[in-house]
Amino acid sequence: MLSTAQLSEKLLRAEYAVRGPIVERAQELEAAGRKIVYCNIGNPQALGQRPLTYLRQLLCLVEYPELMENGATRARFPKDVVERARRVLLEHPSGTGAYTQSAGIPFIRQAVAEFIARRDGIPADARRIILTDGASKAAQAVLTALLRSPEDGFMIPIPQYPLYSASLTLYGGRRIGYDLDERHAWQLGEAILSESLEAACAIGTHAVGIVVINPGNPTGAVLSEDNIAMIIGFARRHGLAIIADEVYQENVYEPGRVFHSFAKVMHALGDTTTPLFSLHSISKGFLGECGHRGGYLELRNVPDDVLAQFVKLQSISLCANVPGQLATYAMVAPPRPADESYAQFVRERDAILDDLREKARILGEGISRIPGMFVEVPQGAMYAFVRFELPPEPGVSLGMMSDEERDVYAAERDTAYCLALVEETGICVVPGSGFGQLPGTLHFRTTFLPPRDEIRDVVSRLDAFHRRYVSRLTAVEVSV
Amino acid sequence: MLSTAQLSEKLLRAEYAVRGPIVERAQELEAAGRKIVYCNIGNPQALGQRPLTYLRQLLCLVEYPELMENGATRARFPKDVVERARRVLLEHPSGTGAYTQSAGIPFIRQAVAEFIARRDGIPADARRIILTDGASKAAQAVLTALLRSPEDGFMIPIPQYPLYSASLTLYGGRRIGYDLDERHAWQLGEAILSESLEAACAIGTHAVGIVVINPGNPTGAVLSEDNIAMIIGFARRHGLAIIADEVYQENVYEPGRVFHSFAKVMHALGDTTTPLFSLHSISKGFLGECGHRGGYLELRNVPDDVLAQFVKLQSISLCANVPGQLATYAMVAPPRPADESYAQFVRERDAILDDLREKARILGEGISRIPGMFVEVPQGAMYAFVRFELPPEPGVSLGMMSDEERDVYAAERDTAYCLALVEETGICVVPGSGFGQLPGTLHFRTTFLPPRDEIRDVVSRLDAFHRRYVSRLTAVEVSV
Repeated sequence: MLSTAQLSEKLLRAEYAVRGPIVERAQELEAAGRKIVYCNIGNPQALGQRPLTYLRQLLCLVEYPELMENGATRARFPKDVVERARRVLLEHPSGTGAYTQSAGIPFIRQAVAEFIARRDGIPADARRIILTDGASKAAQAVLTALLRSPEDGFMIPIPQYPLYSASLTLYGGRRIGYDLDERHAWQLGEAILSESLEAACAIGTHAVGIVVINPGNPTGAVLSEDNIAMIIGFARRHGLAIIADEVYQENVYEPGRVFHSFAKVMHALGDTTTPLFSLHSISKGFLGECGHRGGYLELRNVPDDVLAQFVKLQSISLCANVPGQLATYAMVAPPRPADESYAQFVRERDAILDDLREKARILGEGISRIPGMFVEVPQGAMYAFVRFELPPEPGVSLGMMSDEERDVYAAERDTAYCLALVEETGICVVPGSGFGQLPGTLHFRTTFLPPRDEIRDVVSRLDAFHRRYVSRLTAVEVSV
Repeated sequence: MLSTAQLSEKLLRAEYAVRGPIVERAQELEAAGRKIVYCNIGNPQALGQRPLTYLRQLLCLVEYPELMENGATRARFPKDVVERARRVLLEHPSGTGAYTQSAGIPFIRQAVAEFIARRDGIPADARRIILTDGASKAAQAVLTALLRSPEDGFMIPIPQYPLYSASLTLYGGRRIGYDLDERHAWQLGEAILSESLEAACAIGTHAVGIVVINPGNPTGAVLSEDNIAMIIGFARRHGLAIIADEVYQENVYEPGRVFHSFAKVMHALGDTTTPLFSLHSISKGFLGECGHRGGYLELRNVPDDVLAQFVKLQSISLCANVPGQLATYAMVAPPRPADESYAQFVRERDAILDDLREKARILGEGISRIPGMFVEVPQGAMYAFVRFELPPEPGVSLGMMSDEERDVYAAERDTAYCLALVEETGICVVPGSGFGQLPGTLHFRTTFLPPRDEIRDVVSRLDAFHRRYVSRLTAVEVSV
């Protein structure tokens, strides 16, 4: 029998909180008949969001083209969707059934380049687009390619999406955390970046890149153009590649805020040397097609021979799944105003985005009114990263602990809190320690994806739970 | 700008011949208007194989369930497929749109376990099934988990499917090649396994597992029960985990030959300790659904805590794509005799398998008649690994070379040969050096997937090309 002692230590050490022990406990409770509200993961369609009709119609016709042969059946689909399915099969006759080129189906890569050019008003090169099984695989490809030695590391935000910390551990790279500024809506500070890089350098860590998530996960923050320009300048001066995780680019709710891509800002700055890897996905935005595992990686300021290595890496797993490639196509080339499916597309898209905006508000405002909980209405993405306070435990002095000890202590406390929350209320959130937090602080991440009524219910149950939990802790303290 | 000097050396060194420079050249020629016959890759639907109707009908209904709401449209689908799509959505209401559990959709894992139990007459545990994005990802998961230090390695066959060599290089593990016995239909010899392991041990390599591909890729060999029992005993004695790559289990053509799974033979031997990782895929067999990237990994003789690490590894990329999971479901739970879709399923399945059998024969017999080429009719899988002879080059003495030098020389020669082949005939095959071959020998791998007429044409063009190529070499020799 194999034992864990025979497994890779990197694997054993990798932690992915979004699917960790709290979720396992929630699944056990659910199997025993409890109703669980899964606020742990950005998985919209698991919480009732409906797929966009035109996307599913396209996939259905390409999966089973015989449907287009019968006039009556064909008439049940909008003309533009039928026309588009036919063009897909003309350009790519094997449909969903065959491996594609390693980097993906050429006309879809072209459509992605046109989407970027349209979005940002800048040139984009289809040859530098690689279609991937979701953005996770794209991020992992960049880490795989750029980590050369055990001393190499990536700068990652604190808090961050744990894909990055888990993958760095798995691939034997170092994490160089930089703190996001909670008091300034989680923007990045140049002084903090410099300090973090210097501290890493001092212990012999060699930074090869910086990860920026915009709009932020778990913070929900949308970065300003100035902030992005600062990051690009910082990366250029320090010879860092940039991973711009832009999967929430459609999820901007705060009036007046807009999404700025790193590619656009970099182009405006005239920076033609800093390597940029931008990720996008079909799993977020208004599509929420997580199950299809589609997305793309765009490479900028990367020469052909480096590009070839990325394509080779893709080739070892052959190619991204084709339905996911097609869904990516639907994302970057949605129906146009003259199309029969356009009105329904707009209606469905806007309903989803309006609903998300409203739910961000309900959750943010609701939680911010709970005594001992602190959060702003999320500007974007699908999450709120909620700070909460607990009374100090008797005999525990944070002042006497090192930063590392305070992290471990906070992880115990926020994990116990989230476990009690799911046990007592069925609400499943992720402890802040899974994302990283300032030493001595406590957080949890929750999505605002459940239906509005459930969100309201989540807020009121959180309120009651938090009071109970705090009063129990206080009672213990008093009895001691 | 990033340079290749800044990329991981492991990535730079990884080679995946199935999609290497010969294929790139073929794509260039095709883009310039040449007709290319892609015999380089087991990608049936790219070469005209049609998808199985029931599978595509099921996918299409789950992608777009609205089709089942209209009586007339619904009537265009067999009752059992509609019924099954409804059951899928009842068991798994988010359909294809949401992330699933990390290990895959529970009822599909259960169906896989029942498939194994039915196939082999042995117990199988649904908890020990992980649904994956094709078998490649399953193999890579096992390598990721089991490689602990740079001295660790896996025994892999020579010739092998280059996924294994490429992934070992990428993950920093060592290859321990063992030669398959070409003169005995590519079976495994215990003495060769022992020699290979001893030689590895002598240079400080620590073998942690052995990869066996059955039916073989690129050899087409189907292993006997005795041969499998020998391998299991060898692995047990040496504390090796077994990766049983069984993706071609439906592709057995030679009359009297049957596929024996490692799980079944291991059960018969009463071996309850040797860790076994079995892979299966929707890409091969008679489905040939390469584009959907579906498959599974079955773990045996693996305790719960080790299993949990594999599930965690899956969780870092969230889950396998859901259409691929559904196609895997269709593979392991095909229509039953009482179902409306059964007759068509059997007709389509048998037509594909009969066609493959016939094409294996045409190719094998045809090539074996070409002077200077040597191959048997493949017993299974989708490939022939053809040995060919070229006249020696003047001034080159193989006898003076080390094994390694002979490998390098053979790689130059077989690559030049395959490149000339695609330039002159449009036939794209893969040099034997991409799979590994005995020092001093030359091979190429070709699929027998093109339509029969094209296969006949491939054989006759190969014949003419080989004569030309040899006579050119001889002319050079004479002129020297």
